[in-house]
Amino acid sequence: MRGRMRAPEIDSYVPSYIVGEPTSGYGVGVVVRSEYEGLKAGDHVYGILSHEEYCIREKLDDFLRFIKKEPGLPWSVYLGAAGMPGMTAYMAWKEFSKAKKGEVVFVTTGGGPVGSLVIQLAKLDGLKVIASAGSDEKVEFMKDVGADVAFNYKKTSTREVLKKEGPIDVYWDNVGGETLELALNAAKVGARFIECGMISGYNGDGQPVRNLELIFGKSISLHGFIVFRLEGKYLEEFYATIPPKLVSGEIKYTEEVLRGLETVGDALLSVQRGTNKAKMVVVVADE
Amino acid sequence: MRGRMRAPEIDSYVPSYIVGEPTSGYGVGVVVRSEYEGLKAGDHVYGILSHEEYCIREKLDDFLRFIKKEPGLPWSVYLGAAGMPGMTAYMAWKEFSKAKKGEVVFVTTGGGPVGSLVIQLAKLDGLKVIASAGSDEKVEFMKDVGADVAFNYKKTSTREVLKKEGPIDVYWDNVGGETLELALNAAKVGARFIECGMISGYNGDGQPVRNLELIFGKSISLHGFIVFRLEGKYLEEFYATIPPKLVSGEIKYTEEVLRGLETVGDALLSVQRGTNKAKMVVVVADE
Repeated sequence: MRGRMRAPEIDSYVPSYIVGEPTSGYGVGVVVRSEYEGLKAGDHVYGILSHEEYCIREKLDDFLRFIKKEPGLPWSVYLGAAGMPGMTAYMAWKEFSKAKKGEVVFVTTGGGPVGSLVIQLAKLDGLKVIASAGSDEKVEFMKDVGADVAFNYKKTSTREVLKKEGPIDVYWDNVGGETLELALNAAKVGARFIECGMISGYNGDGQPVRNLELIFGKSISLHGFIVFRLEGKYLEEFYATIPPKLVSGEIKYTEEVLRGLETVGDALLSVQRGTNKAKMVVVVADE
Repeated sequence: MRGRMRAPEIDSYVPSYIVGEPTSGYGVGVVVRSEYEGLKAGDHVYGILSHEEYCIREKLDDFLRFIKKEPGLPWSVYLGAAGMPGMTAYMAWKEFSKAKKGEVVFVTTGGGPVGSLVIQLAKLDGLKVIASAGSDEKVEFMKDVGADVAFNYKKTSTREVLKKEGPIDVYWDNVGGETLELALNAAKVGARFIECGMISGYNGDGQPVRNLELIFGKSISLHGFIVFRLEGKYLEEFYATIPPKLVSGEIKYTEEVLRGLETVGDALLSVQRGTNKAKMVVVVADE
C-alpha cells in the first residue's frame, strides 16, 4: 500500500493510487447481492477491495476470490496468517529456503504476520531462529511463537547478535539497507536470502547496499519475489495446511484491530512508523 | 588475483598474497620430477601454481590436478576456455541460467574468456545475445563468436542499448555497480542474474547498488558463485563437452600471450585497466 502512493507514471507491479479515488488493499468482503454465477448473497470474497463500505465488482479473478472460512477462525485472520501475509511466508519459505535441520535463520520484522509465521515454519523444520523486531511487545510475541533468540533492534545491536548467534544459512529480509548488509556479513557459504521487502528504503531515496560483492565468495543466492506469482504452485497446499494449524493452535498469530473506515490511514501510518503492536486489521462492518 | 592483494586479516574465500613471497594463480605446469604415486616426469598439472620457474608441491588436490590435453589444442587454452574461466562460464550457465530458446541475455566483459564462452553457450541454447566490452577489438571478437548485439560501453550508452534491445531474461554480471543497476532496470519478470564478478568495484571502495528493490516486483534471483563449488557437479561434463568443441571450432576462443615471469604484473594490470586484447596468458617456459 505504501508503494502505491506514488506518481502514476512510475512503473511497478501494482498500479498507483489515484488522487480522488478510494484507496484499496487486501480485504474480506460479504456479498450483498450477486448476478455472478456461483456467488450468492452471504458468500465471502477475499482479495483487493477498495476502502469503501460497499463496492461493485464485475467478476472473480486472481485478485478477488470466493473464500470459505475454517470453522473456529475469525475472518480477520484471513487478512493475516491465513491471508496474503501468511501465503507470503509459507510459499516463499517452501520455494526458496531449502531449509535443513540444524541450520540457522535470521528473520526480520518477526513480530508481524509474515515474520511470525516464518519463525514458526523454521522451527517446524528444525532450524535455530534469530528474530528481530522494533518493540519489546513484539519481542515477547516472537519468543512466544518459538524464536530461539529474539531482540529489539532499537535497543540491541543487530551486528552483535549476529556475531554471537550466527553465522546464518537463511535470511528472511523485510527491511533491506544496513540490516541486509549485516546479514551478508553474517552469512555462511551457500546461504539463501529470501527477499520479501525493504521497508527501510520505502520512505526516502532507498537504501544502497554496499557489500553485495560478498555474494561471490559465499555463493549466496538472493531471491526476490511477489507472492501472487507463487500462488499457482502453492495455494491449495497453503489452505490445506495453515488454517487448520491456526485452529489447533500449532501455529500462533496475533493482530491489532481498529474499527471504522476512517482508521485506514492511521493503520498504515502505524506500520510505517513501527508503532503497531501486530498485524493491523481494520473492521469496517461486523459480519 | 586482484582480490588477493589485500591485508591478510581481511577474510575472503582465497588467502591474501604475502609480501615477500611469490604470488600465484592458475597455471599449467610440467612435472620435472615426482615421488607422488601416479604422477611422473613429463606429466602436466593444472591448478594454483606460484609464479616461479620451478616449484615444489606435496600432493595433488582440488586445486592442483593431473591434466590431459585434448589433441589439437595448445596448453595455453587450458588457462582460458578449457580452464577455470571456461569452467566458470559453462558451470554457472548450466546451474543458474534456466535458459529458454528465444530469451534475451546481456553478457558483460563479453570479450574475455568467461564472457565469450557465455555468449556462445547462450547462442547454442537459442537466445538473443547482447554483449558489451571496453574496446572495438573485443566488440569484433564478440560479433565473431555470435553476439547478436555487441557494443563498446565506453562509446555507446549501455542504458540506450538495453532500452532498444531488451528487456532481458538473463544477466551475466562481471562488472557490478552502475551496469548492474541498469540491468535491474532492464530485467523482465523472473529474470536470472548470474553474479560472476564486480570488477567495477575492485579498485576503490566498492560500488553501491541503489535499486536492488526492483528484485521484488520483477521476482529476480541473483546467484553469487565461485566456480570451485560447482566443479564436483560439472567437471567431468565440462571436459567431455568443451575441449572437443574448441578443437572442432564450434566454440571459438582468443588469447593474448606474454612471455617471461617478469610480465605477470603487466598482464594483471592490463586486465584491470581493460587495455588487454583478450585472455592474458603468460608463458614462462615452452613445453
